[in-house]
Amino acid sequence: MSNCIFCDIVNGNCDAAFVHRDDSVSVFMDIQPVNAGHMLIIPNTHAAFLADLEPNTGAKMFRVAQKMAEALRASGLKCEGVNLFLADGEAAMQEVFHVHLHVFPRFEGDGFGLTFADTYLTKPPWSELEGAAKMISTAIERSALADEDERQR
Amino acid sequence: MSNCIFCDIVNGNCDAAFVHRDDSVSVFMDIQPVNAGHMLIIPNTHAAFLADLEPNTGAKMFRVAQKMAEALRASGLKCEGVNLFLADGEAAMQEVFHVHLHVFPRFEGDGFGLTFADTYLTKPPWSELEGAAKMISTAIERSALADEDERQR
Repeated sequence: MSNCIFCDIVNGNCDAAFVHRDDSVSVFMDIQPVNAGHMLIIPNTHAAFLADLEPNTGAKMFRVAQKMAEALRASGLKCEGVNLFLADGEAAMQEVFHVHLHVFPRFEGDGFGLTFADTYLTKPPWSELEGAAKMISTAIERSALADEDERQR
Repeated sequence: MSNCIFCDIVNGNCDAAFVHRDDSVSVFMDIQPVNAGHMLIIPNTHAAFLADLEPNTGAKMFRVAQKMAEALRASGLKCEGVNLFLADGEAAMQEVFHVHLHVFPRFEGDGFGLTFADTYLTKPPWSELEGAAKMISTAIERSALADEDERQR
């Protein structure tokens, strides 16, 4: 047993209802489903956060998510739509610190929903959107420059 | 102008605060952000639903999402965590019918949350999880067999 329940599942030290496993990712049922059919897609190799996740494995997770969404719709389980959800960090509601992508079926009146701050319906001025875009773009450029420095060392 | 607002954005027929664009995907600010820094990642080529999305482009969207999450955390915008969210189908709360992956920063007390049906806290029996897993696995196998038939034709 490790101190990560999802590593235990991957390693066969903890039971799970599996849907799929391959060299890089595993898919099993969430034990507390939003709706019947709720799956978790995880990397087989431990990665606590998105920042720790090998990008090829992340890309694979999304490929598998697309297949799982297709399968949910064809499964006979009640499924009129599908949500993908990922929580990165405790402030984002992450509870198990091994990256996991939720894939769950939706149907009208299923009781699942999102809640927002009171300010949500007030659209921000354009300058604020442009300002946020600029801050993020600058962070991307800094990161690219740091990667370049790293390669040249 | 097309009848798809996101196609109009990609084609430069509608303004957006862009963060990134390349050959296959575009990233711009959501005009109604959950929190400042809320981005949408979309395929440049129109795809209404996950089922219409070219899998390599889907994989690329997740790669870009990982980079955007990193950039958000480094941007100076308030960001203690990050959520990824995708709605596939109207019953899953999709509002614009061109696939889009939400990436937004989170922080404690930001007022964003999830709501669930009253039955959510009742964990289903193991047999129910195994049953759902079996239904989904069967759908995956059927789809793989259909693909195989298609190839042999």
